[in-house]
Amino acid sequence: MIERIVILGTGLLGTSIGLALRASGYRGSIMGWNRGDIGAHYALEMGAIDGFAKDPLTGARDAEVTLICVPIYATLDLMAQLAAVLTPDQLVTDVGSTKREIVVQASRYYNTLDRPAFLPGHPMAGKERGGAELADADLFRGAVWLFTDDPSWQRSPRAAELVSDWRALVASMGSRAIDIDPARHDEMVAWVSHLPQFTATALSALLQEEVGDAPELKDVGGRALREMTRLGASPFSMWRDIALTNTEPIERALHALEQRLAHIRENLRTPALRDEFEQANKFRRE
Amino acid sequence: MIERIVILGTGLLGTSIGLALRASGYRGSIMGWNRGDIGAHYALEMGAIDGFAKDPLTGARDAEVTLICVPIYATLDLMAQLAAVLTPDQLVTDVGSTKREIVVQASRYYNTLDRPAFLPGHPMAGKERGGAELADADLFRGAVWLFTDDPSWQRSPRAAELVSDWRALVASMGSRAIDIDPARHDEMVAWVSHLPQFTATALSALLQEEVGDAPELKDVGGRALREMTRLGASPFSMWRDIALTNTEPIERALHALEQRLAHIRENLRTPALRDEFEQANKFRRE
Repeated sequence: MIERIVILGTGLLGTSIGLALRASGYRGSIMGWNRGDIGAHYALEMGAIDGFAKDPLTGARDAEVTLICVPIYATLDLMAQLAAVLTPDQLVTDVGSTKREIVVQASRYYNTLDRPAFLPGHPMAGKERGGAELADADLFRGAVWLFTDDPSWQRSPRAAELVSDWRALVASMGSRAIDIDPARHDEMVAWVSHLPQFTATALSALLQEEVGDAPELKDVGGRALREMTRLGASPFSMWRDIALTNTEPIERALHALEQRLAHIRENLRTPALRDEFEQANKFRRE
Repeated sequence: MIERIVILGTGLLGTSIGLALRASGYRGSIMGWNRGDIGAHYALEMGAIDGFAKDPLTGARDAEVTLICVPIYATLDLMAQLAAVLTPDQLVTDVGSTKREIVVQASRYYNTLDRPAFLPGHPMAGKERGGAELADADLFRGAVWLFTDDPSWQRSPRAAELVSDWRALVASMGSRAIDIDPARHDEMVAWVSHLPQFTATALSALLQEEVGDAPELKDVGGRALREMTRLGASPFSMWRDIALTNTEPIERALHALEQRLAHIRENLRTPALRDEFEQANKFRRE
């Protein structure tokens, strides 16, 4: 079993994973590192980590499993740096929201018999605001945890064991693992995750312009408006990297939604509106 | 105080109002009528109404206050029929989601000293599915209840009293009344209520087409996807009348959102994306 984990990046996801590991009975050590002091101290106070790593490389060197929980470009950077200092018996995994570029990086620096192992992961859980202070041991309960592993990658027997132990820990946190091809992953999350986010951002930004000076109108909108704009609070810092590493699939999804809205707009007074509602009803029924 | 109310249409809103009136201590009678038997029987079983009116006109004739809780076009029809049988000392009010056409009808048939009184109302509360079985005594707690009354309308002293008593009952159900011009009402709800609905319908219909054959992808989307498509379950029967009676404001709002989505799509790799997120963040902060 895994005995030493380090979490690089104790924001919402990193801290929640630390808490979930503890709640599920993991007994090894969990060290943490965070770029900002506040996030690191929150994580320690909440019991998500046992102590601080001096820096990412030292932390990873002392661990069997390194979990990277930072935005995509920072993940790609860390992957290159860590590969230079880790052994073939050490595993790195991540939680990045797009996977093609991370898999390219993993193929470049990891997963041969003389290099460390990398397992690309993506838990489908989060909140519209980040930060260790919102961390939640139950964040992954009932969620899907996607892996875009590549069967042609090679790993030492110990690294292979760490991969299967990490998958067991993911299950113990209450998540269901699904293995998927990285290109298919990025295409799919463009529809079911990135499109909803950018739609909420567009709707919130538009409403800020139209009714932002009359805050009582938000009450008028009620629960429906609150739900449809909740993701409007999501931080650019995280979504910038997603937009940059999954541009084409997101463009296609946004363009399709624009066309769908135009179709509804042009048919507000025709029977075609019924078809749209029926199609939408079906999505919610199945 | 009001002693006899009839609720015409015991669906989600009508039945919830009956329950909320009882919960807030209203002690007069509440009769009910519904086009379908099932809704009426649910309302009776739940205690939202005391008994059934034989038909809408008989029910209204026997009541001091008639509350119409049916879709817009059915409301417009009932308004014409009721005006022919009621006295200047009787009040009719409604819960319709668009108000210009209802106000036109009210000016045509009501609100002179020799005609019955009509008070146009719109509680900003609901659920994505209708039906008496989902009724909830707390549906209006904390909600805004819009009125588009016209100061030039004339009412008998008794009808004026019923108007102010009905407003008191609305407050007792936990709602905050806001008075607003009907054209401004329809423009405003196009932004904060109809636009979110049609956006959810478009998104749900699109996703049904793209990923509807792979239901496990809905799990992948998680809470964000569920929230952004919850309103996809809304029934066409209700929204058809809204689309028909508020077409131009909804067209403008949809067109503005299409443009906003296109702007985001064209700027996924530019700093303009940051501005959109910041604008959206502001909407959620204020």
